[in-house]
Amino acid sequence: MKCTRCKAKAEVHLRAHNAGFCRPCYLEYFRRHVERAVKHERMFGPGDRILVAVSGGKDSLALWDVLAGMGHQTTGLYLGLGIGAYSDRSREKVEAFATARGLPLVVRSLAAEGPGLAVPDVAASTRRMPCAACGAMKRHFFDAAAHEGAFDVLATGHNLDDEVAVLMQNTLRWQTGYLARQAPVLPASREGLTRKVKPFCRFYERETATYALVRSIDYVYEECPHAVGNLTNFYKTLLNQLETQSPGAKLGFYLEFLRARGEGAFEQFNKVETLHACETCGQPTSAPGRCAFCRMWDIEKLTSAVVQ
Amino acid sequence: MKCTRCKAKAEVHLRAHNAGFCRPCYLEYFRRHVERAVKHERMFGPGDRILVAVSGGKDSLALWDVLAGMGHQTTGLYLGLGIGAYSDRSREKVEAFATARGLPLVVRSLAAEGPGLAVPDVAASTRRMPCAACGAMKRHFFDAAAHEGAFDVLATGHNLDDEVAVLMQNTLRWQTGYLARQAPVLPASREGLTRKVKPFCRFYERETATYALVRSIDYVYEECPHAVGNLTNFYKTLLNQLETQSPGAKLGFYLEFLRARGEGAFEQFNKVETLHACETCGQPTSAPGRCAFCRMWDIEKLTSAVVQ
Repeated sequence: MKCTRCKAKAEVHLRAHNAGFCRPCYLEYFRRHVERAVKHERMFGPGDRILVAVSGGKDSLALWDVLAGMGHQTTGLYLGLGIGAYSDRSREKVEAFATARGLPLVVRSLAAEGPGLAVPDVAASTRRMPCAACGAMKRHFFDAAAHEGAFDVLATGHNLDDEVAVLMQNTLRWQTGYLARQAPVLPASREGLTRKVKPFCRFYERETATYALVRSIDYVYEECPHAVGNLTNFYKTLLNQLETQSPGAKLGFYLEFLRARGEGAFEQFNKVETLHACETCGQPTSAPGRCAFCRMWDIEKLTSAVVQ
Repeated sequence: MKCTRCKAKAEVHLRAHNAGFCRPCYLEYFRRHVERAVKHERMFGPGDRILVAVSGGKDSLALWDVLAGMGHQTTGLYLGLGIGAYSDRSREKVEAFATARGLPLVVRSLAAEGPGLAVPDVAASTRRMPCAACGAMKRHFFDAAAHEGAFDVLATGHNLDDEVAVLMQNTLRWQTGYLARQAPVLPASREGLTRKVKPFCRFYERETATYALVRSIDYVYEECPHAVGNLTNFYKTLLNQLETQSPGAKLGFYLEFLRARGEGAFEQFNKVETLHACETCGQPTSAPGRCAFCRMWDIEKLTSAVVQ
């Protein structure tokens, strides 16, 4: 196959797009698609300060790389989840990435935020699945870091495979409230929640992996040990079968969802509530009282335990 | 396991419902659920004349059996599709079923309706997949038979597995118009389309097969040769994996869809059009001109060929 752009020998074949690229043209294709997504969805402008949540995996490091390369003002945010050697290695990758490129990095760690806050500890004490606990922790500390650093936008490396797995999960239960809010951009709230954007939401995982490979980004190859065999990965396996049977099916599922959503399919389920300040941590929350994070994990008790 | 109703030894285990039944109690469970679906969805009343579309398979014969057993006025409709030995065998099963029970049966055959109208011929001449051609032919001749016989309602044996496969297909492409109309009851139109109902839409295929077995219904075991490996069966395979991973997932997918649909998720996509009489065959159709069936297959040419 020849490169769709320059007719040199193609090294990357994108079956869903029926296109092939040589390495330099692939980078060009990738960057242009990011630019287009950012503009089309009005994710951020040239002057905005972007906090990029980086886990040490291919997607988030590729995102940081491409946004920094496009000249955006980026700061990395690494949150240590306390998942043993996996967390140690991912932190090393992120720090090496930032140092080599001279990019600013904020490092925080759950264990340092309070005793018992590492993901495995929270999962055990709240009897939640680790991935559910981890999601709640990340939301809380990502929001806090974006707010404290007065960033304009928080960017995450969710790719198309991530988005369609969540979409499948929400759709199989017709969770109309979640469907109403699943979008490439989650707007800022008046109460202080920073805008959240997913510039890679239209890229297949293979595409971000290829970008990382071509750009020689050194990332953590292994998956989080808790993610092995979880429900999201089960949905990804189903969706991969679908994609094999019908190339482009995942992209179609996602884009047609965005079209239907844009046409108001779930509008009546999108209850725009006034947000309240959480009684415990002060972060914005949809219901009066304590936020989901503080309800899950009684930080007051922790704080008093630390003070005594 | 013991029978959930009478505590005798259970012979049927319904994993999705976490229930078990002995044979007599299973029949009782099955009939009650049909009664409930018919009442809940207002499918038909005691005086209505019901035309039951029967293919010779387990679902449609089980439906005819249970509706006749409940005392409803039922007539069977068998449409010969002209699919070789498969069609011959299915017709024999249907005729034997009707004769043994003394139930009225209308038999029509595509080949007798006009030359080249058997499903394999239509598929070949229109270059359609056989299942797409078959669907269009069945819709056309079922509607015609219901109208000609002045039936109040047309009942089909679609089970939960059928419904969720279609739902998955419509959802993966977010075909909002189809989603708006997918329901256990398709109302009658003022222009003469008979109401269509699916009393088995909440039964897993295993449940209708079990009913047919317990009632000793003799049906065609083999699948239509054209259905082997088609897209609907591919979706069924995916959905079976989901059900194995999470029993009840299919039922949840369907019922939550009906809930979301009932709450208006796709209401704005349900364009209630004035129906027009097809220029060629006179049946109601959504667009002026010829109906989908007549557009697919030029019946005028056929008729003139037969007349000459």
